[in-house]
Amino acid sequence: MANTTLTISSKNYSSWSLRGWLLTKFSGLPFEEIVMPIDDPAARAELLLLSPSILVPCLFHDGIKVWDTLAIAEYLNELKPEAALLPKDIRARAHCRSICGEMHSGFGSLRSALPMNLKAHFPGFKVWARAQSDIDRIVTIWSECLKQYGGPFLFGERSAADAMYAPVVTRFVTYDVKLDPEIVDYGQRIMALPEMQQWIADAQQEVEEIDELDVEF
Amino acid sequence: MANTTLTISSKNYSSWSLRGWLLTKFSGLPFEEIVMPIDDPAARAELLLLSPSILVPCLFHDGIKVWDTLAIAEYLNELKPEAALLPKDIRARAHCRSICGEMHSGFGSLRSALPMNLKAHFPGFKVWARAQSDIDRIVTIWSECLKQYGGPFLFGERSAADAMYAPVVTRFVTYDVKLDPEIVDYGQRIMALPEMQQWIADAQQEVEEIDELDVEF
Repeated sequence: MANTTLTISSKNYSSWSLRGWLLTKFSGLPFEEIVMPIDDPAARAELLLLSPSILVPCLFHDGIKVWDTLAIAEYLNELKPEAALLPKDIRARAHCRSICGEMHSGFGSLRSALPMNLKAHFPGFKVWARAQSDIDRIVTIWSECLKQYGGPFLFGERSAADAMYAPVVTRFVTYDVKLDPEIVDYGQRIMALPEMQQWIADAQQEVEEIDELDVEF
Repeated sequence: MANTTLTISSKNYSSWSLRGWLLTKFSGLPFEEIVMPIDDPAARAELLLLSPSILVPCLFHDGIKVWDTLAIAEYLNELKPEAALLPKDIRARAHCRSICGEMHSGFGSLRSALPMNLKAHFPGFKVWARAQSDIDRIVTIWSECLKQYGGPFLFGERSAADAMYAPVVTRFVTYDVKLDPEIVDYGQRIMALPEMQQWIADAQQEVEEIDELDVEF
């Protein structure tokens, strides 16, 4: 078994897998992917938000197991400070952790109404009011960051925050969400990252699909 | 205005306020409380999980604003390393961050079915099956920690993890959840902390009550 592995599930559907995978890629730590098939009952339960235990993403490194996406970000930031997953400035770092935390615990309406689905496209999708509040808050977060740190990424250079919000970028594309030009531009920069291109290409190859009738959330 | 403030809401109902407040108390950083009344529409919306923006807990320190509970934990850990909010050992630290992350993003069924309510007591409360899965997972987390690190707290000495799980301890008491002796003992140690005693005494003094008919989650 490789020294470093990252367990993920569907590249098409699993937003948490994408976050963990991007964080690990951004860190520069070489790793081997372990993909849990989504027809595995445990993986399926987690993907449908029906399971309380955390299966993905899960990083194994040097005999240490780190589950939970923010824990992976902090672990990798300590291990590879040169990758600057967190900003060097204390104020920017507090800001970055705050918005990463918001993504980590919040935006439930967005998650349930606009689940990540990279292979799909829904032009003219009607966004439910409560999901729209989540979208508005995310746009505010991004606008403040881009203004305050000058872009091109949320905290200037690429950071953990871009990985945390990357699945939202894909949702805005999938569900045809109308956005201001600066937000569209930011999204395009995220989509153009080589790591995102690789992930999306892999997602396109996936044959497994979730039966929508099974989705309770 | 004081140099350091922590904005919280109801001490009786707001589990996130309790987490942020305990973390700040544990850090040793002196601070002034700002309490948002729960009849404030914004505070109310957040407490009922209807708002996407983060109002509480929010730490202001030295001109830096930190919202989100895990961001506060990381900020305080950097500021006051001597308080050891996170374990010194890299493996224990990864473990601590992983379970703090699980609490931060998960256990939605427990939160909605057994909301924090320090003044209430429901003997023989019937726990919904999905909330029971959350309880089982939390018991597993605590048991593993107490076994691995030897107690008396989750990572030996008091850490951020105890603050993150403290509201669950109160829920187990409020809703009369049946638990193994080692788990009951851990809960009693948390409830006996002088900080918890102070918080609970303050909660008992609160006169505001949430109209249960308003609660959608």
